[in-house]
Order: sequence, then structure tokens, then C-alpha cells
Amino acid sequence: MTANALSPEAARTYELDRRHVFHSWSAQSTVDPMVITRAEGCYVWDGAGNRLLDFSSQLVNTNLGHQHPRVVEAIAEQARRLATVAPQHANDQRGEAARLIAERTPGDLDRVFFTNGGADANEHAVRMARLSTGRPKVLTRYRSYHGGTQTAINLTGDPRRWANDSGTAGVVHFFGPYRYRSHFHAETEQQECERALEHLAQVIELEGPRTIAAVLLEAIPGTAGIMVPPPGYLAGVRELCDRHGIVLIMDEVMTGFGRTGAWFVSGDEGVVPDLLTFAKGVNSGYVPLGGVAISEHIAAHFAERPYPGGLTYSGHPLACAAAVASITAMEDEGVVGNARRIGAEVLGPELAKLAARHPSVGEVRGRGVFWAVELATAAADVMPDLVGTAKRLGLLPFTNANRIHVVPPCTITEAEARDGLALLDQVLDRADELVAR
Amino acid sequence: MTANALSPEAARTYELDRRHVFHSWSAQSTVDPMVITRAEGCYVWDGAGNRLLDFSSQLVNTNLGHQHPRVVEAIAEQARRLATVAPQHANDQRGEAARLIAERTPGDLDRVFFTNGGADANEHAVRMARLSTGRPKVLTRYRSYHGGTQTAINLTGDPRRWANDSGTAGVVHFFGPYRYRSHFHAETEQQECERALEHLAQVIELEGPRTIAAVLLEAIPGTAGIMVPPPGYLAGVRELCDRHGIVLIMDEVMTGFGRTGAWFVSGDEGVVPDLLTFAKGVNSGYVPLGGVAISEHIAAHFAERPYPGGLTYSGHPLACAAAVASITAMEDEGVVGNARRIGAEVLGPELAKLAARHPSVGEVRGRGVFWAVELATAAADVMPDLVGTAKRLGLLPFTNANRIHVVPPCTITEAEARDGLALLDQVLDRADELVAR
Ligand SMILES: Cc1ncc(COP(=O)(O)O)c(C=O)c1O
Ligand SMILES: Cc1ncc(COP(=O)(O)O)c(C=O)c1O
Repeated sequence: MTANALSPEAARTYELDRRHVFHSWSAQSTVDPMVITRAEGCYVWDGAGNRLLDFSSQLVNTNLGHQHPRVVEAIAEQARRLATVAPQHANDQRGEAARLIAERTPGDLDRVFFTNGGADANEHAVRMARLSTGRPKVLTRYRSYHGGTQTAINLTGDPRRWANDSGTAGVVHFFGPYRYRSHFHAETEQQECERALEHLAQVIELEGPRTIAAVLLEAIPGTAGIMVPPPGYLAGVRELCDRHGIVLIMDEVMTGFGRTGAWFVSGDEGVVPDLLTFAKGVNSGYVPLGGVAISEHIAAHFAERPYPGGLTYSGHPLACAAAVASITAMEDEGVVGNARRIGAEVLGPELAKLAARHPSVGEVRGRGVFWAVELATAAADVMPDLVGTAKRLGLLPFTNANRIHVVPPCTITEAEARDGLALLDQVLDRADELVAR
Repeated sequence: MTANALSPEAARTYELDRRHVFHSWSAQSTVDPMVITRAEGCYVWDGAGNRLLDFSSQLVNTNLGHQHPRVVEAIAEQARRLATVAPQHANDQRGEAARLIAERTPGDLDRVFFTNGGADANEHAVRMARLSTGRPKVLTRYRSYHGGTQTAINLTGDPRRWANDSGTAGVVHFFGPYRYRSHFHAETEQQECERALEHLAQVIELEGPRTIAAVLLEAIPGTAGIMVPPPGYLAGVRELCDRHGIVLIMDEVMTGFGRTGAWFVSGDEGVVPDLLTFAKGVNSGYVPLGGVAISEHIAAHFAERPYPGGLTYSGHPLACAAAVASITAMEDEGVVGNARRIGAEVLGPELAKLAARHPSVGEVRGRGVFWAVELATAAADVMPDLVGTAKRLGLLPFTNANRIHVVPPCTITEAEARDGLALLDQVLDRADELVAR
């Protein structure tokens, strides 16, 4: 993306960005953003007028695609009706959003504490777990991401934690199942599952079960690599938590609301956590929103005792109106089923073919519209080239470490998915060249 | 507010709220929210159709009043144009919002890291200070509020911290100037200022200057009591920070964007912090938004080193479009000047008269549309009665501890302010009765 090719408006946007916007996770002098001027469905347009197929869903949040007309109209209408009220008052959109979410979360997760995003959802979930158990520690996985605020980044198991890690009080990281690079020297999926559970059981024993408030884990680790847990793993973790009175917090910020072809992985797998955190897909990120779905027994802990936490925009009417419209549209249009079908019939089989054809690919894995293509090399040095190649071809990818994630909107059609896979095929040709060298 | 009086729609809202919404800072069984169905300018309507004059600005965030048509239309328009893009891309509304903010912050605070609200703004500001100094500690005031996430609540100096305070690593609280209940046995404002600075200087000396990353303080403590600092205090803190290479973070989440009759207290007082956090008034809370305005020397620290923090909705286009419209409307309509004039000509003098007339009042203090009426008694047990009285009279107040805050929108007219003061007069009659008893 060179400034020359940009329209005058886009050039101005680029210039203002470089002068005034501080970017996340970046050395500021190296930031060279793509200007996005327009978006629709599975496509975005850059500042030079090029159309790109969005295989990233931005940060894996636009589950309904870009600019879904029903959500757009609901936002416009709610803005005209009542943009904001404080959390202590009641508001129809907030109550209705909470009801629609509670209906879709598994088990008795029937109360919702709304936040602005995923990080604060995890911060508050951990607080609820600590206060309701009276215990200090939280166990989370290596290879995980739980958000950017201080507690959330220390819960995180991926390298983004390191620069923030000045001795992480009360957080212990354990290994989860990841068959492709097994920590447990497992030879079968079942062995991986058994050994991962045995490992967690031992960590719990040796940390002291009564010091552990919660096990927090992504239902399927997202940014860290989309490692779908083997059958029985999540149920096994639930069982360990039950045995020791540990709160199970499932982070479904990235997996929730259709991404995996289900409303939630937890419900899909028949495992009910005590707390479930969400954000992103709840309203496709059209308005910032996140939250914690709370089981009855945790809510009961705060029936007579004040819950010591809050935020100005908890249950923001505009954000909640977008959630109501988004969930309703997903339901009416069968979007969750579409994600499941595209995964089972298109992405799954076609990515397997790409993996077989391209020596640079180590493994593909995923479910629904939530797939990782992991390179055989563990090194990430080829990734900037691959991202550049993809963008030139008209494909906007999501990448992390040595992986390209295939995470389009849940609304993607079969034709769009096949178009994107054809472009990915070319990107992997380039990967073969680079990795072979 | 009894359910009987509610319209059927409002009754349904109330019921859904009580069944599914988990409320902040509350024992859930005691929550009895007012349903808000409509709002305009300085007024809200409850579920029974009663109109209330909003002397709270909700949580002191609707600086432009409710439903300002230009901001509402900007949200509707941006929703139709481009609701969301990921932080790594560039977007016109984000760049323009950053420019408008940078123009209004003092000094060289010319780069903006956008967050979702005030808590995460403070979390990231503290991270920037710690990483750029390599020092661990942050000094904050007792009697302060900095947000609800874990680090932010531990920075907080008010009692909301207590339930979360399991040994606050790296946070040290000091006393700020508060002449009405002076910690320093001061007899004049000047003495209060000198002694408060001497106190802070000694805390810095004894904590070890080279262990201190930042002093974080609200420009004027808000929820904790609107204690306007005596002349010279903020400049004195700046001077102490300079002497020891300590980063000065000014939390202008509540004071910013017109509340005090200035864009920022820091600029108004001629004191340039190294980092300034904002939220609330930046777009009146119509869409969740916060951020950190960053000075050149702190930004430079992250020019070649990655900044290790981020969030999915950093620089959200819809939130930024609301900020652009809100700042522009405030500018065009002279809203900041209105807040200053209403403070100087109406609220200041009239509240002084109320204080003189009502024995229950201990002190009134403030600036712009940012005033506290502190009862003479330190006990807060009469407050629920006063809140109920105010609501019955048609006044929606903001209260904390033994104080009623007068914090209407910055757009309030003289007539509306006088109406509200007349109702407050009646509330204080009730206070006189209750406190005298
Ligand atoms: C699994 C998971 N949890 C939490 C978060 C943090 O969410 P947010 O960026 O909205 O704070 C993310 C964001 O990518 C995530 O993927
Ligand atoms: C001074 C100050 N800082 C920070 C915050 C936290 O902001 P938020 O509630 O948006 O997280 C508040 C909220 O009231 C505040 O008044």
C-alpha cells in the first residue's frame, strides 16, 4: 500500500493516522496501515479503490459480515430513540439483549453483566470467581489470549504477555491439548486428551486446589492457533473443576455467536461453564460490547453482597440494540447453520486439499468458519511477505506467528469461500517458494 | 418507582432487567432500577411517563445533553457508511477524531491511543508510564476513582477499591488538597496547597523517587467529591514530577470536554501532563469511547519498540464519528463557554445561597457544571431518602457518600439550571429535617 495510489481523501486519512493515531501492539515508526474506506458483506475496499475479500472478519468479529442492513438500521434507529443511559437505570434494549444472550448460552447462565469488550469481560469474570471462592489463583493456558488490560494480559498465555509480565501474581499457566505440536508426546488424539487432563489434574494438585479460584480457558484457543480440543477435553476440565470447587470460566469472546457453527462451543459440546465471557460476534463489533454470562450460583453470591465492579457504559443501549438486531438477524437468516455448513462442506475439505498440495503447510484445523493453516516451519519470518502477497491478490488475511487463519464472516457464501480459497492457494504457492528456499 | 405505575412496555423492561441483567456496584437483590424510556437535552422520562431534569448527566457523561441531533445523525450516517474496522487499518473518522482531540489537549499531547472507556485508558496510560520509565510504582490520591478493571480499581482511592484490594502491588496512595476536611490542618487555601505539595514531596522521597513511574491524578477529583485544587497545586505536582523524572498522568475522564467550562482542566491551568486520559464527554457517551493522549517523548519511547497493548475496538469508527460530531457541535455551539458561564453566573452564586440557607449543607464547591453539595454530616444514611425525594420532585441527581453533585449537561440553559436549583432547594429542606432530627 503506497500513499501514491491513494485517493486524496484516503491520503488525508493516512496522513492524519500517521500523525495522530497511536497503534496497538506496534512500534509506531513501523506502522503502515491500509486505509479502509468502505465495506459490505465479505468485502472491504482500500484507499486506492481495490476490493479485498475479508478472510479476517477484521479481528474475527464481523460474524454477520460488514454493514448488515438490519444491524445498521437498528443502530440508526436506537441512536434516534435513546443513545445512552447509565447502567443503574433499566433500558429495554439492554434487557432484551440480556434475554437473547441468556437463551443461547448453555445451562443456567441466565444473567449478564455487560462490559465494553472481551478484556474487561475477563477481568470481571476473574473477579467474580475470586470473590465467590475466596481463593486467589487463576489457571490459564499457554497459547491463549484473554485481552489487553493488565489482569487480562497477564492471564494471556501468548507472547503478548511478556512485555507486561512483571511477575504475574495469582496466575498459573498450564499446557492444553495441541496435537500438532504435542507437549505430551501423544500419538493419538485420545492420548493427547488424556495426558492433557492428567497434566491439568497434576498442576491443580501441586498448586493446591484450595488456592485456585478459576480455570479460565478459551473454548477453542483463537489467536493462539485454533486448536480444537479433542473430544472429552472440555468435559474433563469441567469434571476437574467440579471435583475441587473451582470456577470454570469459558472465554467465548472469539468462538461465540456462530463462529464455530454453533452459538457457543460450550453448549455445542454439552459443557456448562460457571461463567462465560463474550464480545465480538455478539453484535459483530458494530458497537463496542462484551460481557459475562453468569450462572445462578455465582449470581447468588452477589445477591446480598455488592458486586464491587462496574463501568460507565455497562449495558449501553446502542451497543445492546446492535446485539438484539444481530442475534435476531443471525437467527432469522440461519447464519449459524451457514457457518457450520461452509465449514463442513467447503473450508474443511478444501483446506485439507491445500494442505496436501502445499509442502509449506504443516497442518490445517478448525470448525465452522474458524480455521488455522499452520506452516510446517515454526518461524514467522515469511509472514510479512505472505500478507503482502495476499493483499495484492485481493485477500485480507488474519495471521499470527506461523499461521494464516481462515476466519471469514459466518455469512460467507460457498462461491465467496471458493474464491478466497483460490487466492489462498496462490499465497501458499508463494509460501512453498519461500519455505523451500 | 413501583412496577404498578409503569406502562406495559416499561413493566416488561423492568422484568427483563431484574431477570437477566447483572448490575454494577450492587447487591443484586436490592437493585430496583428506574426505567428510562426517552431522553432529550437535559431531560429524561421514566417508565411511568414522568419527566425528570437530569442533574446527573447519567454518569457525568452526557456533556452535550441527551440526543443531540448532530451527534445522533453522525452515528446514523456512520453506521450506514462503515460501522467498524479493525485497529490496524486506518479510517477517516478515527484520524479526524484524533486530530480534533490533539488540537484541544494542552502542549504536545498530539497522539491518541483509543480505548473503550476510562478504565482501560488508565490501564494503558499506567503501562506506558511503567514501560517508558522502567519503574514499578504509581502514586495516586486517596479520594479518587480511576475505573473498574483490576489495575484501575487498585489505583482508585475511594472505598470501591476495598473489596478488590488483595495487596495492591505497585500502587501507593497519598493525600490531596481538600480544604473542607483538611488532612493537613490547614487554615488557608494557600496553606492547604503548600502542605499538600510538601506531603507529596515527602511521599516521593520516602517511596524512593527512582521506584516511581507515575503520579496519576484526576485534574479535579470527580466522584470522590469535586475538590477543585487550590491555585498552584497542579503546577506544583508537575514540578515534583519533573524533578524526579516521574510521568504525570492526568485523568480527565470526568473533567474533560467542557465539564469545568474548559476543554481540559490541565490546559485551563496551564499544566501539561505527559499522558492525559479521557472518555465520557469525548462523545457524551453516545458510543463507548475513551483514550490516552500521549506526549511526544512517551510516543517516542514506542517508536522503535512495540507498545505491548491493544483491544479489538481501539479507534472504533462509529465511536470516533460520534466524537468528531460531538467536538464539532460543542465548538460551533459554544457549549464549553456556556458551561463556564452557567457555573460562574448561576450555579456558583445560587449554590452558595443554598449553602447559606440550609443548615444541613457543609460546603458547596465546583466550577463550570461540576459542583458538589457536601452535607455537614459525614454520614451517608440520609442519602437514599434524598434521592427518592429528588426523583419524586422530578430531579435526577448524582450522589456519592454524603454529597449531591450538581452535574447537568454543559448545554443547560439558565432557566433549566434555575428550575433544578429550585428543586434542589426542596431536597435540601428535607435534608435539613433529616439531619436536624
Ligand atoms: C479469546 C479472546 N478473549 C478476549 C479477547 C479480548 O477482547 P477485546 O479485544 O475486546 O478486549 C480477545 C480478542 O481478540 C479474544 O480473542
Ligand atoms: C475520573 C474517572 N476516571 C475513570 C473512570 C472510569 O471510566 P469508565 O467507567 O468509562 O471505565 C471514571 C468513571 O466514572 C472517572 O470518573
